[in-house]
Amino acid sequence: MKEFQVATIVGVGLLGGSLGLALKERGIARTVRGVGRRQNSLDVALARGAIDESFLDLKKAVKDADLIVLCTPANSVVAELDEIHPHCRPDLVVTDVASTKSAICQHARKTWPSPLRFIGSHPMAGSEKYGAEHATGNLYNGSVVIVEKKESFHASDAHRTVCDLWKAVGSKVFELPPEQHDEILARTSHVPHIVAACLALLIDPDCHVRPMIGSGFRDTTRVAAGRAELWRDICLTNPEAIARGLIAFQEKMTRILQLVEERDARGLETFFEQAQENRKRVLDK
Amino acid sequence: MKEFQVATIVGVGLLGGSLGLALKERGIARTVRGVGRRQNSLDVALARGAIDESFLDLKKAVKDADLIVLCTPANSVVAELDEIHPHCRPDLVVTDVASTKSAICQHARKTWPSPLRFIGSHPMAGSEKYGAEHATGNLYNGSVVIVEKKESFHASDAHRTVCDLWKAVGSKVFELPPEQHDEILARTSHVPHIVAACLALLIDPDCHVRPMIGSGFRDTTRVAAGRAELWRDICLTNPEAIARGLIAFQEKMTRILQLVEERDARGLETFFEQAQENRKRVLDK
Repeated sequence: MKEFQVATIVGVGLLGGSLGLALKERGIARTVRGVGRRQNSLDVALARGAIDESFLDLKKAVKDADLIVLCTPANSVVAELDEIHPHCRPDLVVTDVASTKSAICQHARKTWPSPLRFIGSHPMAGSEKYGAEHATGNLYNGSVVIVEKKESFHASDAHRTVCDLWKAVGSKVFELPPEQHDEILARTSHVPHIVAACLALLIDPDCHVRPMIGSGFRDTTRVAAGRAELWRDICLTNPEAIARGLIAFQEKMTRILQLVEERDARGLETFFEQAQENRKRVLDK
Repeated sequence: MKEFQVATIVGVGLLGGSLGLALKERGIARTVRGVGRRQNSLDVALARGAIDESFLDLKKAVKDADLIVLCTPANSVVAELDEIHPHCRPDLVVTDVASTKSAICQHARKTWPSPLRFIGSHPMAGSEKYGAEHATGNLYNGSVVIVEKKESFHASDAHRTVCDLWKAVGSKVFELPPEQHDEILARTSHVPHIVAACLALLIDPDCHVRPMIGSGFRDTTRVAAGRAELWRDICLTNPEAIARGLIAFQEKMTRILQLVEERDARGLETFFEQAQENRKRVLDK
């Protein structure tokens, strides 16, 4: 792919900082600009070599950029799309990295001109660590990125550029319509996260339970260590699919509570066998 | 501690087989007998050196033993206690490794003579692997074993011997009353397992979700790969504490579903912050 002259990364946390490093290390962008709300975080990104220039002003940072990647929490992306829109070059390509896609992509479709040069992305990368201090140029290498499925109103070259961008940093690209993405992710990621948070809240840390905490509890609740702000935004931007997932989950819980209360040996065994088998099939595919 | 002459291990799966290996490797028992329902499993344990002699007949296997460790699923232990009782040496020491303790310890207290020489144990070791083929002499090394708290009706020497046995294989011993053990484990282990099973059942493996499965789903549901028979028995032998834990969990779920449906940004952020903080405190203690 051709080199970008000016790539602007809005939000230089783990995802934004890692993308900056990858763009620099792989020669994908000549200049990488970083935008943030606090100079502190920008200084970390500058010191790590993740960005070349830092900006507190979003409008100035996007001027003349030929690539913008919005790496802020899901609930901020819509407002940023509104803010950058009047200041963008006509041949600009814009994408984001938010974990939910419907709200963001629907908003861009309604408010940006056609052919649309914003193409939503969701890189399945990251961890419960955050901040540019944990950024690494290899974060996206070998990971999966879901890119908004190309529709007739998308600018073909912009869509191709976004797919090529992710491939250039080492990712595998899958295309999905935003609604389908959000419905699937509600069950594979958002509901598991909410469930992990509920499990973590079930234990009284003052009750000297530490010796009885095994790797099961640690693993089952690991994602609950993730950033509260990020997960708040995921809930706010995918509430309907998440609510459907939570209700489906509660139905399973009601069923097993009944089996426990009835001491139904055969029913319990079947329940656990089916869960084991289903997990295996999901992971083996 | 003095060497056991004949240690009988009932059930030579991962836990029983690993105990046999540890007893042999550390010179804790002169002869290790293994008891099983199928000669196949016993042959694996023999080949691994986990046991010296194999028995299909429980009564014969416990004759003249000075240590018996019941390593079968929780729901089998009560019947085994009844079966071995008339055939035991008067100075015998008996323990088990089941993940639930109230039902088993209560039964022994009611049916065995005082001073009681059965002392319940729960080694917090193991994994989703099972069978003597995965046994290792180091399984208990560095792990925690919860031992039934000493009461006036316990034989002091038997209680001391059980604690010393676990220390001799490298474990740290904590003492707890069986009811308290079961109440805590319901929340740190049993409910998390049930929740993981429900999450695993939430996804249709035929819907091509594989690229959207991240490490979050994998970790959150890892324990659901555990043996169905084992988890059935845990539910059957600790139904009341598990039901209480499930109901408390459902209350948290109902709360967050409400926050999601109301798009309550502040409430959601607080919920995730509290979960993150609570998990940290539980694991840091």
